[in-house]
Amino acid sequence: MRHVAVIGIGQTPVDEHWEFSLREIAGKAVMAAIQDAGIGHADGLFVGNMMSGLISKQENLGVHLADWIGLTGADTMKIESACGSGASAFRAAVLAVSSGFMDCAIAVGVEKMTENVMVETTSALATAADADYEADMGLSFVAINALVMQRYLHVYKWKHTDFANFSINAHANAVNNPNARLREPITLADYQKARMVAEPINLLDASPIGDGAAAAVLVPLSSVKFSRRPLVVVAGSATATDTIAVHSRSDPLWLTAAEKSAKSAYQQAGVSPEDIDLFELHDAFSIMSALSLEACGFAERGKGPQLALDGDIFPTGRIPITTLGGLKARGHPVGATGMYQIIEVVQQLRGEAGAAQLEKAEIGMAQNIGGSGATITTHILKKVK
Amino acid sequence: MRHVAVIGIGQTPVDEHWEFSLREIAGKAVMAAIQDAGIGHADGLFVGNMMSGLISKQENLGVHLADWIGLTGADTMKIESACGSGASAFRAAVLAVSSGFMDCAIAVGVEKMTENVMVETTSALATAADADYEADMGLSFVAINALVMQRYLHVYKWKHTDFANFSINAHANAVNNPNARLREPITLADYQKARMVAEPINLLDASPIGDGAAAAVLVPLSSVKFSRRPLVVVAGSATATDTIAVHSRSDPLWLTAAEKSAKSAYQQAGVSPEDIDLFELHDAFSIMSALSLEACGFAERGKGPQLALDGDIFPTGRIPITTLGGLKARGHPVGATGMYQIIEVVQQLRGEAGAAQLEKAEIGMAQNIGGSGATITTHILKKVK
Repeated sequence: MRHVAVIGIGQTPVDEHWEFSLREIAGKAVMAAIQDAGIGHADGLFVGNMMSGLISKQENLGVHLADWIGLTGADTMKIESACGSGASAFRAAVLAVSSGFMDCAIAVGVEKMTENVMVETTSALATAADADYEADMGLSFVAINALVMQRYLHVYKWKHTDFANFSINAHANAVNNPNARLREPITLADYQKARMVAEPINLLDASPIGDGAAAAVLVPLSSVKFSRRPLVVVAGSATATDTIAVHSRSDPLWLTAAEKSAKSAYQQAGVSPEDIDLFELHDAFSIMSALSLEACGFAERGKGPQLALDGDIFPTGRIPITTLGGLKARGHPVGATGMYQIIEVVQQLRGEAGAAQLEKAEIGMAQNIGGSGATITTHILKKVK
Repeated sequence: MRHVAVIGIGQTPVDEHWEFSLREIAGKAVMAAIQDAGIGHADGLFVGNMMSGLISKQENLGVHLADWIGLTGADTMKIESACGSGASAFRAAVLAVSSGFMDCAIAVGVEKMTENVMVETTSALATAADADYEADMGLSFVAINALVMQRYLHVYKWKHTDFANFSINAHANAVNNPNARLREPITLADYQKARMVAEPINLLDASPIGDGAAAAVLVPLSSVKFSRRPLVVVAGSATATDTIAVHSRSDPLWLTAAEKSAKSAYQQAGVSPEDIDLFELHDAFSIMSALSLEACGFAERGKGPQLALDGDIFPTGRIPITTLGGLKARGHPVGATGMYQIIEVVQQLRGEAGAAQLEKAEIGMAQNIGGSGATITTHILKKVK
């Protein structure tokens, strides 16, 4: 098994890119990553995407993008794990380089959601859940998460407002990220009076959709002879799953797949939660931030919101999260999100996060979730000293 | 890079499975493969599928299936390369086992196409082509292939009827395959009078869609201590791509991606076309059989149909193809097809192909195409002596 280094990253802002097609958006991110890496060729392209078939009437996305960006001939595939597609594509690229089948692979996550003709985005998002037993019963994706949050408030006796800092922190961090969709700070008062979406989830608990793409270039660590900037390696890569439907779980308030994939990634990297300097978690809804922190060992069961209340999740806190805005404020172009998380960790480890730069960033973790805790991929990246 | 063995295979018949859901169809194939392999656990599940989002309103297919078949917790992802999704999923499993990340992976291809509520299948199939420059211009997928065949007849001076043996052979072979959808032999007269679909492609040039799933269990060769039956190893695995739109190619009558991926697979396996005992090629349309044989080195440019006319493609011929019916008669449940091809090669190498068994089957090749020659994956499997 070869060690894998990330030598280039690229992204588009998350926004409503009505003026660009799916391939143009992805192409911008990939070309930026290629330029950042300084490579002239890649063997393979792994595309993370959830809903191009539904929204853009386009499948066969691997070749669709390889052709467009001038990588015609490259080995490609599209990877889909709902909102976890981005990290799955990155992981597929890690496997390809690690195995020796490829000496240079590009992973890109892309989604174009805001302008569509065939289906409603809400309906497309519901394909992440169980079509037969959740979506067909009338549950939208936000409604499923609302049931989980409602139950969490009931069981662990938190108030809705105790979650405010998850959103306040994300928005504050996004102000410093030129690629974020929502660069406005919010206050506790804003959070408390936000419009209800699906009780108890209000508009400021929920991440906005968006169009965007993020990409990374992966090579074997052994092939890197010199690097102009701090070199980042993949120290851990793991995916685990739970039941697809939330009602099938013995404890709907515990992310078993997050725990399992994080444990595997910690083991591969030889680290424990205390060693993690930043955690780009999957804050599609504020409740997911609490559950992720608990499952990954940063808080005890039922105590996740305490980290928000205490400011432990702030850039200066014990475990900074969503340091460039997270899903909540950078935006959540679903199939691209996992790749945004990866490259944001790389930005932090390299010291290239601009005004959002953390003081200490040696080891970072990114965790991407497909469905309501169903498919969870955890990556740990390390700066090579 | 570890060598990979295929220790279990399973499939459902290709048919109209209106009585079963997507997960039930896939589950049958996976459970059969697990039973065939005699394993009690697997680390990962790679799902090849093209249109579950469009047809069944279900994405997140990796966890959807892992959950159903009792592999809850397993590392999963869905892989999509249009009609080439099956082979891409198999290849992803090869990478995972080869890299050392997994010690046992299952690849399954599944498609449920015949009963749908959201979209027409013809419209879903068109997502394999370029949405902006082919499909949106009104070209269906069969129409694109019809343009290619028309051009081929014009340039290389073949008559339509010269392609008859591709279909006659496929149907004759399917008679011996209990899992095939069309188990009726056809005659030259049938072929000549078949109803036109898109000139010059008639109904007997075109493969039927269907519902079905096929699965395989992969482990490192080094982990196999004994085997009750002939052991099959993956000797070559490669994907290559062309432009997604046929009109962008300098020669629309040459499958560059087939040539490139086959050459890579030959090199990995240390073989040449003369060593291949059977070739499960992607006969979605009869013209694709001719083009595939040429690109992979079995016929000179423009001479593919001669192999059909001479009977070289028959079970007793120089290079038997579609030995269990091929896409034409076994059926073409698009995202599953590549996995059917793989397990049919395994059946032949093991000597388990029943009445369709070839006399000599030591090295077999399977080639799966996504789009009109856009994404092409070639696998070479070998029987361990």
